[in-house]
Amino acid sequence: MKKFLAEIDVMPKKEILDPQGKAVTGSMKNLGLAEIQNVRIGKHVSLEIEAESTEAASEKVDQACKSLLANLIMESYTFKLEEVA
Amino acid sequence: MKKFLAEIDVMPKKEILDPQGKAVTGSMKNLGLAEIQNVRIGKHVSLEIEAESTEAASEKVDQACKSLLANLIMESYTFKLEEVA
Repeated sequence: MKKFLAEIDVMPKKEILDPQGKAVTGSMKNLGLAEIQNVRIGKHVSLEIEAESTEAASEKVDQACKSLLANLIMESYTFKLEEVA
Repeated sequence: MKKFLAEIDVMPKKEILDPQGKAVTGSMKNLGLAEIQNVRIGKHVSLEIEAESTEAASEKVDQACKSLLANLIMESYTFKLEEVA
């Protein structure tokens, strides 16, 4: 069994309004950071996974995202897998 | 002025208990994904920024993280900057 580290980003879909991001975009102006625009806020999940291969690990992470970590109606996810010693 | 896209990860520090991550680690077992361990959950922020150079953009993003996006007592952040057309 090999051990992998997965770094997952779960973000609100582009078509979906992101009120938290909108609020933060507004606050940037008050902080003197008006150059910052289009803030969008989602989740970042890191986890460790044991699997025989990168493919098997990738499949398990996909399954975890679909069944628990992301709400696919409103969110989309991307992830990176890295083998650790 | 150039336009940059920043992708920021804000994660709870290693020494800090992450109850949300702990709860999700437990749920993985119930979903038949016991190979998944050590789930930690933080925020992912994407934003656009206008600046003269990568260095200037990086400084602004640092400032935004320190003053608004991350609570440095409990969280640490990393980010990547990419120039967009």
